[in-house]
This record gives sequence, structure tokens and C-alpha cells, in this order.
Amino acid sequence: MSTFPKDTYIERRNRLKQKVGTGILLFLGNEESSSNFKDNWYPFRQDSSFLYFFGLDMPGLAAIIDIDQDLEIIFGDNLTTVEVIWQGAHPPLSELAEAVGIKITKPRNELPEFLGKNSKLQIHFLPPYRSENTQKLAEWLAIPNAEISSRASVDFIKAVVALRSIKTEEEIKEINKAVNISVSMHKKAMKEAKPGMKEYQLLGLVNGEALALGGHLSFPPIITINGQILHNHNYSNTLIPGKMLLGDFGAESAMRYAGDITRTFPVGPEFSSSQKEIYRIVLSAYQAAVAALKPGIRFKEVHLLACRKLAEGLKELGLMKGNLDDAVESGAHALFFQCGLGHMMGLDVHDMEDLGEEYVGYTDELKKSKAFGLRSLRLGKELEKGYVITIEPGIYFIPQLIDQWQADNLHSEYINYEKVAEYRDFGGIRVEDAYLITDSGSQILGDPLEIEIEDVERIRKQ
Amino acid sequence: MSTFPKDTYIERRNRLKQKVGTGILLFLGNEESSSNFKDNWYPFRQDSSFLYFFGLDMPGLAAIIDIDQDLEIIFGDNLTTVEVIWQGAHPPLSELAEAVGIKITKPRNELPEFLGKNSKLQIHFLPPYRSENTQKLAEWLAIPNAEISSRASVDFIKAVVALRSIKTEEEIKEINKAVNISVSMHKKAMKEAKPGMKEYQLLGLVNGEALALGGHLSFPPIITINGQILHNHNYSNTLIPGKMLLGDFGAESAMRYAGDITRTFPVGPEFSSSQKEIYRIVLSAYQAAVAALKPGIRFKEVHLLACRKLAEGLKELGLMKGNLDDAVESGAHALFFQCGLGHMMGLDVHDMEDLGEEYVGYTDELKKSKAFGLRSLRLGKELEKGYVITIEPGIYFIPQLIDQWQADNLHSEYINYEKVAEYRDFGGIRVEDAYLITDSGSQILGDPLEIEIEDVERIRKQ
Repeated sequence: MSTFPKDTYIERRNRLKQKVGTGILLFLGNEESSSNFKDNWYPFRQDSSFLYFFGLDMPGLAAIIDIDQDLEIIFGDNLTTVEVIWQGAHPPLSELAEAVGIKITKPRNELPEFLGKNSKLQIHFLPPYRSENTQKLAEWLAIPNAEISSRASVDFIKAVVALRSIKTEEEIKEINKAVNISVSMHKKAMKEAKPGMKEYQLLGLVNGEALALGGHLSFPPIITINGQILHNHNYSNTLIPGKMLLGDFGAESAMRYAGDITRTFPVGPEFSSSQKEIYRIVLSAYQAAVAALKPGIRFKEVHLLACRKLAEGLKELGLMKGNLDDAVESGAHALFFQCGLGHMMGLDVHDMEDLGEEYVGYTDELKKSKAFGLRSLRLGKELEKGYVITIEPGIYFIPQLIDQWQADNLHSEYINYEKVAEYRDFGGIRVEDAYLITDSGSQILGDPLEIEIEDVERIRKQ
Repeated sequence: MSTFPKDTYIERRNRLKQKVGTGILLFLGNEESSSNFKDNWYPFRQDSSFLYFFGLDMPGLAAIIDIDQDLEIIFGDNLTTVEVIWQGAHPPLSELAEAVGIKITKPRNELPEFLGKNSKLQIHFLPPYRSENTQKLAEWLAIPNAEISSRASVDFIKAVVALRSIKTEEEIKEINKAVNISVSMHKKAMKEAKPGMKEYQLLGLVNGEALALGGHLSFPPIITINGQILHNHNYSNTLIPGKMLLGDFGAESAMRYAGDITRTFPVGPEFSSSQKEIYRIVLSAYQAAVAALKPGIRFKEVHLLACRKLAEGLKELGLMKGNLDDAVESGAHALFFQCGLGHMMGLDVHDMEDLGEEYVGYTDELKKSKAFGLRSLRLGKELEKGYVITIEPGIYFIPQLIDQWQADNLHSEYINYEKVAEYRDFGGIRVEDAYLITDSGSQILGDPLEIEIEDVERIRKQ
């Protein structure tokens, strides 16, 4: 387990205390997670906010910060003698806690009592996303299960979001490591994919590459010849020449910062000419979006700019028509680009998604739109220096959606359905990288990974 | 998703109904499992008993069998139009259910109501091992959370154990597939391991191999130069010549049957002479155990036979002494072999561990021993034709345990602590394969994998 220097965590907690002001902050770490029986565990993943403020990447921990008493305690148990025999020796919790600046540790069974004693104070907690933590909160704080989410502390959430949104230099280094593992995974896929292979063979290659570089998957990989299926976790298809492979996957660094990259490449050595045409449109949207990144611009604006670029290209190909300002304003482009341009990235691949999009991606002034397309945009608010975000435009031909819109005669003033029919089986194209917002613009994270058509084809021809 | 023929499931359910006799059987499938935020999921793993009786390997399902009304219903939801756009089209639940012989499907939100209407009948359920399923049972059946485990139906458990314990031919075929993927993983490790590599690089290779063959890990792999740490999920060490690598890992087949194999090989091209000596003892215990396998013999006897073999070899090396019958009877050998000789294997790697060892591995007559060593033996009862079990003896030098026993002067009439001190840093050796109990003996599962010293060294020298 590697951690940042002690002072990093002390400073993070101090800033958090200042921001929230008063009360007790309760942090629940994660437990081991059972797959098909209790002791058959998924790979352990610590809660990201727990990691951010306490750094300890192991199960069974919780912590409190009593702001008013200036008291910080980690609750957890040392290994028993029997556990040491079975699992090997580990440093005692007090020593691990000391390394992240925490002087007091207590057995985990003392936490409910501690909370009971302080039940008259305001106990702030973050919204849980695992059933066992919901359960603990319900029991310890005597709140009905169903009310737990709505009783999460907005002050606590906002303070955590404010801190975690701005990445420090040491965090950027970690994110770079994660992105670089992700780059290696993509290079592997781009080099090794061959007609006749199964998608799951590529999954094996890229997952193996992540682990071999000391990483973990940061989310369930998408590795598919059906790139138009946006949430596709099926890996059973055969790679067929003429098709493209869309790979959207990445790794976490050892310290659990995430990488997230997408590339689309031909199964054969070259893109077809119509694939090239669509690819160029996606790439131009990507480039326009990247060029627009800077502190102060709303990400929603960047998203719409990319949509406009996509619409322009689609109009040139005859797939869209009419006034493009009006088309994008009305959401007609969302037939081809149904999702958001990007999201924050940090200790989570969709950073802080557990804390709520309304706090992470929007503000009291800027609420998320309910329109198709925009409602899938996780991030809309103004960018700030230190944000790390992804840029991931795409064009997807989803037969079910095309049929539905056409049947409803939706946006027919902007969409040439006759031409769209020619692309019905095209699939989908997406490219994605992560960017750091700098003083005056942005900076790509990680080592270079081929994205231009000629560069991708060069690798495919090797 | 592949399933057995419809009749397989119909017959399993019919036999189950006969065995339990009366009441409503409630089956909870598993949900998606969140790692660091709600929608960032671990790979989905269906509940094994749900798979056994209903075959459907997807989240969000439950089922009931009303034995008295001869009614079978699967509860679950079809994809919404929006989900189809995002996830692609899937066959409707009714069609999937039909393929496993179920004629009635209902939306999942109708299950609580169904249970409420039948609350005066006996509702049998299996002990849950995931918090969200405990939660559902508590809510739907109005049972306090803490009482759920103890209120699980013993009749239901015993009937499921009776059925799942005896593997049919079609199951054996699946287990063979799982074992063969596991064999490929081990061959990969044995061929590719090189001094200077990190354990996690091997983890990447073997995990990648499993996925590339269409498998999933059946449990968290052990890949370590510290084989004496029995539950070791650390992969951070460097492979050092002179050390051995212990690999205990395996894969599930596409239909979720498990494989589980262990091999121990030298990091360099050859075992040292003392490594060979210990390896031979472990192998002789393995062979003696395998030779003893047949219907009717208690697995506890086979375990003790293996212990006796280990003790004989350890006595020859001067590590043990005195009367070996008495030594094994007293548990002195457990200084070197702390765990059980094996376990059932099927849809779970420790088959049916969620249902309780007292039902899976023991009987009303034969209870599990509480003695150190025997208390880790998951399976003690008489073997039957059709059982699939693992045989996995080992010798482990655990410094903490040696120190503890020596300080307590434990079993000093059987243990030569002075000699043991020479092996303090030896590590551990284990070998493991899975066997099917046949009419008159047993049969190894899967393709051959090198286990003799000369064969292992031949691969290491390539």
C-alpha cells in the first residue's frame, strides 16, 4: 500500500474541517465484497473519499473527524494471531494511521458507541453506494434504510467535491501513471487484434497488461465490434474484417487514480472510406473541444461546440441538413451522439459519481438539462484550473433509436433519414483522452497514443 | 449466456420439490455489485443455486417455486426502450425463461406482493451472503436483519446440497472445461515465470489467459514466493532465484463451473535438494490420498491418511519424531499442514460454501472437529459417486506459528524444533488437482498438467 506524504492528508483534512465548519464527519471505508459466497471476494476497492482523506487501502475501516473537538480517529482492527498465521504479518493499524497523520485508532466495534454518545451533534455522512454501508448507517444512526440517501450531508458533499475536484501536482503524477498503463493496454490491443479473434481474447490481453503493470481495471472495459452499443459489456463477438473495434478501457494506478481512454480502429489493416469520413468528423469534434478547454468556460459549452462540429461533418456527408445552430439547439444531433462529451476523472473514473452529479458537474445556478443527449452530460459547469476531465465525442448509428425517431418523425427538418439508412449497420466511433485544465488552456495526460487515421493504420499494418 | 437443455432444469426443480415436500421456495438471484460508485460494477456473478435451478446468468432476477400449487415463476424486468438504446437488444425474459422450462414471468416489483399474499405459508429461503439480498429478505418477509441467517430453511439447504453434490455427466463436461482453462493458466505461469519478474506480472499473464479462453477467475489467485502464507493476496514481491513460486488459481467455464489447481515450481530452472525433499513428501501425500478415493470412504480419513504420509516424510527428514499414529492423532503435523486436504468443487470453487459447511461437508453424525488443522477441513463426510473434490496437501513453514508452538512447548515429543529452525525461511509447497469420485475409485479432471519434479523442471529449463 503506497500513500502520499503524511502532510498531504493532514492538509486535506484541515481544509475539509474549515469548509464544513462544525459537527462530526463520518467516513465509511469499504468492506470486502462477496461474489458467489461470503469469503469469495472481488478484488478489494476502497472508497475513494476515504482514500482521499485517510489513504489506507484496506477493508474494514471507518473514521470520524469531530470538527469542534478537533479529534480524528480511525476505527479498525488489527489482525488476530490466527489471522497472522493465515495471512502473514501486517503493520499494526496504529502504525499505518500514523503514516497518514492520524494519532488515535480504536477497535471497529467502538464506533457505534462513539456515534451513540454523540447522537445529539450533527453527524455528517456521504451517500453510501454499497448496501452494507447503508445498513451500518441505518443501524448506527437510527435512520430508516430508505431515508439514508436523502439524509446525506450536503455540506459534507460540497466540501469534498470542492477539494477533490482540484487535482494537485502529486495527484497529476498518479493520474499520469494510470493513463500510461491505459496507453499500454490500448497499444497492446491495437497491435494484437486480428481478424478471427474473439473480443474476449482482446479483453484477456488488455486486462492482463493492466495487472502486469501493477494496475487494476478502472471500470468494466468496452471492447466491441458493436461500438454503437454504448454500454456494451458483451465480449462474445468475432473480429470481422470490415468492422471496427471500439475499445474504451483504462486502469487504475497502484494508488487508485483512474485512467480512461477510447480508440476505434479497423479490424483489417485500413479503415474503409466511409469509416474514414465518420472518423474524421469525430476527430474534428475532439480537436475543437480540446482547443476550447480553459478555466472559466462552461463544459456544457464545450459539449455543444463538439456537437456543432459533429453536425457540420454530418451535414457535409448529407446525414444532417438545415440550420445547424437550430439543429444543435433542438438536440437533433443526439441521434448520432446520445451521450455526454466527458466527465471528471480522479480517484474514480467518473470522479465522485457517488456524491451526486448535481454537486460534481452542476451548480445551484446551472442545473442539468433533461433533454435527450444533454441529460447524459455528467459535467456542465465552469472548468477550473486543476480539473481533470475526459473528452470523448463519438458518432453512433443505433438502429433502434433511428427507427424510433423516424417513426415519430423526429427532427426530420435536420435529419436526412434516407441517407441515415445507408449507415444503419455502420456501428460507432469514439475517441477519448484525459486533459488537465491549466492556467490558460489544457494539457493532455499520459504518453502519446495514436489517434490520427494514418498513425492508427500504420500500427494496424505492422 | 449458455444453458443446459431445458429438461435439465425441469428435472432439477422436480427433484427439489420432491425433497422439500411443501411450502414456497424463494430464490434470490444476485444484483450488480458496486465497487467505488453505484454504476461502476464488478464483473457480474450470478448466485450458484439460482444458476443450478434456473440457469439464467443475469442480474436482477428472483424466482419462486410454490410446491403445493406446482407453480414456478421467474421475477425480473425486460429492458426498457432507453436501456435497449444504451445496452443493445436482448431477448425478452419470457423467452429466456422458456429456454429453462419456466412458463411464467412477472415484473420484479410483483415479488414482494406475491410473498405478502402467501405470508401464512412456509417460505423457504437459502442463507444470503450479500447484504442487499439480506436486506430484501428482511423487508419482504418482515424478519429483523440480524435473524435472517438463522431463519434460512434447513430443509431447503439440505435438499439443494443433496442435488448439487452429485455431478451429472453434463456438469462434469463443464467442470472439465473449467479445469482445462485452469491448466492453460498454470502452463502459462510455469513457462513464463522468470527471475526478476514481479508476482503481479504473472497475475496479469494468468488472468489474461483465463479471459482470453472465455473464462473468469473462480477465486482470487494466490501467486506468491511466500507459499507459507496460506491466504496470500499480495502480488508485490520479486521472483528471486532459489525461491519457489506457489500458484493456486483457476477459472470458471462460461457456464460458471469452477476449476482450482495448485502447483509449486522453482523460480530458477531447478528445485534445490531440500526443496525436492519436501516436494516429494507433499507429492507422496497427494498420491496416497488420490489412491484412497472411492465411494464410501470418509474424506476425513483420506485427510488423516495424507497427514500420516506427510508426517512419515517429515520424520525421515528429522523434522518430526516419535510414534506417528499418536503424532497425527494429537495434531502435531498441523504445524506443517494447517489446513484441510480438499473441498467440494462445482458451481462454486468451494462448492456450496454459502449453504454451510455443516450441511455440505459434514452430517448430523459427523460434526466438524474443533482441533487446529481439522477445523479447517471443509469436507469430512463419506464420499459418494459423482462428488467432485480437490486434493491439495502441502507443507508450510510459518515462522509465527513455529515460534508460538515452540514458546508453548507444543507437541515437542513429536516435533524436532531444532531441525525445524533450519527450515524457518523455506516457504511452502502445495500441489492440487480436482477428482471425480467414480463407481470404484476416482478420476482426475482436465488435461494433464506437470506435477512430478522432473516434468516441472523440464518446463522450467525450456
